[in-house]
Amino acid sequence: MKNFTSFADSGDYKALLQQALEIKAKPYGYQHIGRNKTVGLIFFNPSLRTRLSSLKAAYNLGTQAWVLNAGADSWTLEMADGAVMNGGPQEHIKDAIAVMSQYCDVLGVRTFPTLKERDEDYGEVVFTKILQYATVPVISLESATLHPLQSFADLITVAETKPKARVKVVLTWAPHVRALPQCVPNSFCDWFSEIDWVDFVITHPEGYELDPKFTKGARIEYDQHKALLGADYVQAKNWSSYLNYGQVLQNDPAWMLTPEHMARTHNARFLHCLPVRRNVEVSDAVLDAPGSLIVQQAGNRVFAMQAVLHELLRGQ
Amino acid sequence: MKNFTSFADSGDYKALLQQALEIKAKPYGYQHIGRNKTVGLIFFNPSLRTRLSSLKAAYNLGTQAWVLNAGADSWTLEMADGAVMNGGPQEHIKDAIAVMSQYCDVLGVRTFPTLKERDEDYGEVVFTKILQYATVPVISLESATLHPLQSFADLITVAETKPKARVKVVLTWAPHVRALPQCVPNSFCDWFSEIDWVDFVITHPEGYELDPKFTKGARIEYDQHKALLGADYVQAKNWSSYLNYGQVLQNDPAWMLTPEHMARTHNARFLHCLPVRRNVEVSDAVLDAPGSLIVQQAGNRVFAMQAVLHELLRGQ
Amino acid sequence: MKNFTSFADSGDYKALLQQALEIKAKPYGYQHIGRNKTVGLIFFNPSLRTRLSSLKAAYNLGTQAWVLNAGADSWTLEMADGAVMNGGPQEHIKDAIAVMSQYCDVLGVRTFPTLKERDEDYGEVVFTKILQYATVPVISLESATLHPLQSFADLITVAETKPKARVKVVLTWAPHVRALPQCVPNSFCDWFSEIDWVDFVITHPEGYELDPKFTKGARIEYDQHKALLGADYVQAKNWSSYLNYGQVLQNDPAWMLTPEHMARTHNARFLHCLPVRRNVEVSDAVLDAPGSLIVQQAGNRVFAMQAVLHELLRGQ
Repeated sequence: MKNFTSFADSGDYKALLQQALEIKAKPYGYQHIGRNKTVGLIFFNPSLRTRLSSLKAAYNLGTQAWVLNAGADSWTLEMADGAVMNGGPQEHIKDAIAVMSQYCDVLGVRTFPTLKERDEDYGEVVFTKILQYATVPVISLESATLHPLQSFADLITVAETKPKARVKVVLTWAPHVRALPQCVPNSFCDWFSEIDWVDFVITHPEGYELDPKFTKGARIEYDQHKALLGADYVQAKNWSSYLNYGQVLQNDPAWMLTPEHMARTHNARFLHCLPVRRNVEVSDAVLDAPGSLIVQQAGNRVFAMQAVLHELLRGQ
Repeated sequence: MKNFTSFADSGDYKALLQQALEIKAKPYGYQHIGRNKTVGLIFFNPSLRTRLSSLKAAYNLGTQAWVLNAGADSWTLEMADGAVMNGGPQEHIKDAIAVMSQYCDVLGVRTFPTLKERDEDYGEVVFTKILQYATVPVISLESATLHPLQSFADLITVAETKPKARVKVVLTWAPHVRALPQCVPNSFCDWFSEIDWVDFVITHPEGYELDPKFTKGARIEYDQHKALLGADYVQAKNWSSYLNYGQVLQNDPAWMLTPEHMARTHNARFLHCLPVRRNVEVSDAVLDAPGSLIVQQAGNRVFAMQAVLHELLRGQ
Repeated sequence: MKNFTSFADSGDYKALLQQALEIKAKPYGYQHIGRNKTVGLIFFNPSLRTRLSSLKAAYNLGTQAWVLNAGADSWTLEMADGAVMNGGPQEHIKDAIAVMSQYCDVLGVRTFPTLKERDEDYGEVVFTKILQYATVPVISLESATLHPLQSFADLITVAETKPKARVKVVLTWAPHVRALPQCVPNSFCDWFSEIDWVDFVITHPEGYELDPKFTKGARIEYDQHKALLGADYVQAKNWSSYLNYGQVLQNDPAWMLTPEHMARTHNARFLHCLPVRRNVEVSDAVLDAPGSLIVQQAGNRVFAMQAVLHELLRGQ
């Protein structure tokens, strides 16, 4: 593994998943790999779960960490090659990333989509530059289109709880009050459409189709109730439209997950990446039911990150 | 000890005090307790002393730490059970606290009073929810009504300097330019009214009576000069009214501690939790006198926190 | 070494330089010095390089670290002795620094100039108070007039790359879009005018003369092209006027460093402390040329800090 930005970077996902499960069983047992290493974490927008789970993962591994809130410090970067920098931005991303690479052994970076310029977002313009200028391995802490650590944590959660060899996993769109990025659903599709022991179904209202690059021909079922039939796992998440980019086309409250929806499943476990708008995306009764794995899933963010750090550092 | 939120949680305070003094004598001698542990520190309002002393305490113990400035990140939490979260707050406190418990072994949290809704503040509505949803031990880094780590540090300071077996300790109200919470004086009363080798006296202008729940029948003397007579220790602090909740009733500059006030004491040592408004609450001549313990007292915040961390982590 | 605030504090600079080079060769080899120590880093204005390189230096040394963004937390300090603190500032610098000294073994502090009150800035009024009230060694992370860690990193960079025993080093003023402090050029002069194997030349437009206290009679050549002739190293940097304090007198784009300028040198290596306004101060072609040492120079900030920390901690 050179960098970690998508499912493809995980290489042999089965080996990586196995590594994560072994690390979870013995979280402090790999400090010979992490000792005298430093991970740098750069956030261009706020973060809670990613920031804290990444720190815990580093600490478990005996690795030091620093965090830079690039956004909060109002530190603006010039992105254009050849720019005459006589305006607002104080530093070129070329220099910033090269320099920060001097201060760590792995660099975790969170960028975010504009939700306005689809070509720019889906071209991963900012992240591509970061990969270009970094001289240490880079971990995506969420980019404009993907959130691979979240999906890896989702996979760990399903793998460690699945009641049988083959499971049906449903990703369902859910209502929200704001226009959200497609990163989490894109990434969930990027991962779960590749898992050979998963029957993967996506359900959403018409118009919320995701980029086919990520859905990879997975089954799309517009009828949510039909999609949920016999599901072993349901992951709910809101996203804005990819086709009418960044738009909220409709927000039908009937799509909010309730016990009535869950009753159509095969006693499914419930997943959500959090934060969740309770009683808008999903009802309390689902979130607080015994089958809700949301806290365990958030906890697995630690072991997803720790497995990736372990993989990137062990060769250094 | 399950959590640390008040004097009552300290259980046998003599044992905890003894532990703190032993840790102070040998601050790095307990790292077998703290190794491979992480303390999470969440601040809903700014902090300097609490933040830094908590970090130093963790480091002394070989424990890792992360800090989340919940306020600065404008990350708003829904507090109401059953809320339909279609407004501003992005995450329910139930989920936030449960998730953060996944990323640490002990959680330190600072909340703050409204100073407007007394029932809400004195019901410790926010802190109670945090205790309810946390799955790891919780340390109060100051709540709406109490600041137990400060009082414990005050106790360490008195214990390690007291010139005789039995001492008179006076808490005196002092003028200020703003309306301040009652946390520090409440907590000082909560602790010092329980110490069997302390004669405890509270003095303040009429109208600044504290909640009797904390003063526990301690002697209240409205005449500051009479209260100071024969004192071995004087702790000065401003607070707003509990009865006329959050109000500044009067701000008589005669209550500012000066050498003339201290002359009535038994050569008393001076205490203040800091920050102090010099020459408003207390004159320079008192703060900078040889008998001023304010820096030592601030230093003891480290050992108060370290003893509490030690106690909460040693059973894990 | 008691504190580290200027070239003079380095004592025997040759020994300190040698120490830095040895540490760079074996960055984790000195943890017996740093273990169980904590460095506190206080920033009164934003920082990227200094913050991250200081953290990396501490981590390399096995030392813990905390960071306080004094500016971002809107925490204002009273500076005046004897002040009646009934205005905005919440804490006196006397108390803040004394208290923070309780929470670390070395204190790094960054202050900044007003660029309006020259006497106040060049009197280092704030930094002098910090040195007065600190009870642990203090490292300047940049003060109103100097940036010694930057200059030490510059010296390490020149020392480890110099092609011959004696080298010509040129500091050239460069255009910019804002009025910048004189700290970096002052400090560069403070150090490089003292290095016995360096022929040091300063070049800038008339009116940009630096404080003679720092240039110490170094050669000043107003003709940039003449100054660059035969240079082995060129450090470019903008600064505002010292004589017409804080003013931008002129901003002649002909002073921007380009390959044509560099062609007059003796195949000089290029230095800049970063951040750099590309194509305003220096052209891309110079910054991205093989002879550009800017990233290595930024990397050496780690070893400059680590050598200073090592020196200050080894006696404790």
